[in-house]
Amino acid sequence: MTPFKLTDELIAEIQQLIEAKKNADLQLLMKEFHYADIAEIADELTVDEATYLIKLLDSEKTSDIIAEMDEDIREAVLNNLSAKEIAGELKELDTDDAADIVGELPKEIVQEVISEIEDREHAKDIVDLLRYDEDSAGGLMAKELVRVNENWNVLTCVKEMRAQAENVTRVHSIYVVDDEDKLKGRLSLKDLLTTSTKTHIKNIYIPKVDYVGVNEKSEEVAKIMSKYDLEAIPVVDEIGRLVGRITIDDIVDVIREEADKDYQMAAGISQDVEADDSIWELTRARLPWLILGLFGGAAAAYIMGGFEEMFNKYTVLFLFTPLIAAMAGNVGVQSSAIIVQGLANDDLKGSVSNRLVKEIVLALLNGVILAVILLLFTWGWKGDFMTALAISISLIAVIVVAGFVGTFTPLFLHKRGVDPAIATGPFITTSNDIFGILIYFLIAKMILGI
Amino acid sequence: MTPFKLTDELIAEIQQLIEAKKNADLQLLMKEFHYADIAEIADELTVDEATYLIKLLDSEKTSDIIAEMDEDIREAVLNNLSAKEIAGELKELDTDDAADIVGELPKEIVQEVISEIEDREHAKDIVDLLRYDEDSAGGLMAKELVRVNENWNVLTCVKEMRAQAENVTRVHSIYVVDDEDKLKGRLSLKDLLTTSTKTHIKNIYIPKVDYVGVNEKSEEVAKIMSKYDLEAIPVVDEIGRLVGRITIDDIVDVIREEADKDYQMAAGISQDVEADDSIWELTRARLPWLILGLFGGAAAAYIMGGFEEMFNKYTVLFLFTPLIAAMAGNVGVQSSAIIVQGLANDDLKGSVSNRLVKEIVLALLNGVILAVILLLFTWGWKGDFMTALAISISLIAVIVVAGFVGTFTPLFLHKRGVDPAIATGPFITTSNDIFGILIYFLIAKMILGI
Repeated sequence: MTPFKLTDELIAEIQQLIEAKKNADLQLLMKEFHYADIAEIADELTVDEATYLIKLLDSEKTSDIIAEMDEDIREAVLNNLSAKEIAGELKELDTDDAADIVGELPKEIVQEVISEIEDREHAKDIVDLLRYDEDSAGGLMAKELVRVNENWNVLTCVKEMRAQAENVTRVHSIYVVDDEDKLKGRLSLKDLLTTSTKTHIKNIYIPKVDYVGVNEKSEEVAKIMSKYDLEAIPVVDEIGRLVGRITIDDIVDVIREEADKDYQMAAGISQDVEADDSIWELTRARLPWLILGLFGGAAAAYIMGGFEEMFNKYTVLFLFTPLIAAMAGNVGVQSSAIIVQGLANDDLKGSVSNRLVKEIVLALLNGVILAVILLLFTWGWKGDFMTALAISISLIAVIVVAGFVGTFTPLFLHKRGVDPAIATGPFITTSNDIFGILIYFLIAKMILGI
Repeated sequence: MTPFKLTDELIAEIQQLIEAKKNADLQLLMKEFHYADIAEIADELTVDEATYLIKLLDSEKTSDIIAEMDEDIREAVLNNLSAKEIAGELKELDTDDAADIVGELPKEIVQEVISEIEDREHAKDIVDLLRYDEDSAGGLMAKELVRVNENWNVLTCVKEMRAQAENVTRVHSIYVVDDEDKLKGRLSLKDLLTTSTKTHIKNIYIPKVDYVGVNEKSEEVAKIMSKYDLEAIPVVDEIGRLVGRITIDDIVDVIREEADKDYQMAAGISQDVEADDSIWELTRARLPWLILGLFGGAAAAYIMGGFEEMFNKYTVLFLFTPLIAAMAGNVGVQSSAIIVQGLANDDLKGSVSNRLVKEIVLALLNGVILAVILLLFTWGWKGDFMTALAISISLIAVIVVAGFVGTFTPLFLHKRGVDPAIATGPFITTSNDIFGILIYFLIAKMILGI
């Protein structure tokens, strides 16, 4: 498959067709594209153009396009549609995607849109899903699934399944429930392909089935599904009744967002922003961390001010303060990133104290190597061995402390139930800058006997 | 589902059972656990204990355990097994997992292991897969799939499918090929459930099917599968013949590893390391970036040395060098992270010059806010308005340049075909440190008229 490539020429061609209202040509052109590709195209058009396109195409396709579009553009396009038109799009979507869209609509029109959905069962399912937290299993699940009663025989079951399968995009598993709708187990499609049609469900279902509670966090659901290689997982409510199903494609998004979030935190960007967000949104996400860095720098300056009496004799000490701050920051970020990633992927084993000892040994090893390089440089440059030695020994101390803080902080936050990712990036760099500079001057002062 | 929790007590209990050779108890205990959980347990045991466990349990389960184990431990455990025993494990695995394991075996025993695999078809498939690059579609795909000929009728098809489905863990799609084995389209299981059995394949298959070439990069495959919400994708060779299939669970790992890699790069950690790797491996991944930082710091010190004549009169300028370096670093990391992430997720649109202009406006906005705060702090602290003003104006210049460099560098590297992630973290921090300090002193000198 040659992957779809969004070009400026294509966008220009589409814009011209819209401008000239060449509907037949547009429909023909769009027929070739996957809805995910059209969503990418729509993201590049003006709101009016995108609306024109959505109104022109068949709602079976446009519903999926809308579900895939960028949130900001979707909001603007939906604003141009009537409640009836929005309901027409929702009708075609699975309940999970429909609920996501309804959740973004302005409160005042939600009720009108819902009341315009003809399939009352579908409308009820969407409303049900709105109750759950976005970041929970309930927020991820869809109501569409194939469910059979343990008391049915295979004939009833197959008949029922055919009817139910009509509404389900992908059948992964057939879930078995009892008369109270409690999840009992599953039937696999493969078993169904290879089993005689005369058996009773009660006798053939697999009682062992993984499931998650409706209030489980999405992150947890992602971990469970990827660890056990599940393509779908049923969701049960507080008393064990089957209420929905989560499929792996929704989890792929969770994993990507989670990893992106940790990365952004490490880079000093709070909130989920993208390169194409407005300058105002980007500033709100970035400025707080920069202010933190500014305070850290001011604190470092204040600390250095306390050592001003050393200025004349030991000028060279002050030349290396950016180096010390940078090394303390780098080591801190490295150590904390490894811990945060280990926590996120659940592959951190062993005790905290062992981990700290390991990090200290590692920091010592790196510190000594770096200190020797720096010693040779400084000695060669300034010709003063004692000062060069004092700087190098201080560097080792700074690196060890930075490694310790970088390892300890995320572990501590995690224990306290705080997202450890917050400890990476500017937070750790800033605190390590301050610690680093203080330790550096104290130790250098001691060695030089000032 | 209460997720499995690995406790020290559980490990101790298992170690005692192994020590006492209580095989029946061990087998009973392990029966409760999923293979992915036992793999986690095995990772915590000594190599001899893990080997004991593997030899004790049934190969149907141990093959999956081995496939899920940590690479290092697996290597050591396989070292303790005979070629015949390894072949016994491979027999139970899908070809993709089997090929991954064979790929890690020492060259000299590969042939022996392969020759011990009784199912010659399976052995041939594994050998075929070894040819492909790990990071390509060929390296990800499995040979197991359900394939039907367009010239068959549905009866033959269903019979063949049942036989083939025995070897396939999860049937996602039924692929349709012609007499030359070229991929023509697919049959969906759902269609099969709802279609009469008397139709010819040629007349019912869906000719539109997404596929990837065998040499496509895994990253590209991941993008295609997650964009189009595919749970499996067929792989074709250079002349369009169906050679394998990639399932979404393998892609989940690719996405996670890709995101982890970018994050690690940003944190100054090259190579794929984990918290539990040896100190030596961790040093190799971390030290090069620290040495880079050290050189950067030394360069900054050298530049500052050039301004030594300003020391006595403008001491305060030197107190703020760590702050300047930190701000330049932070802004650079923020800008580059947004670009790198945008490139990775393919949602970076518009021209490079627009992007640079946007980043400069953003940096100016942030810079002015930060400069005002710093001005008030420095003026209040030292009482010298002109110096405080010089420092603040220099800070704005430093931030704008840092934002520019942070945005431009990853875009430039990407254009040149280099992984832009390398431009985040220590690389950008270090170069921004140097630029920052230089700009800072030059501008301050100009403003103060020295």
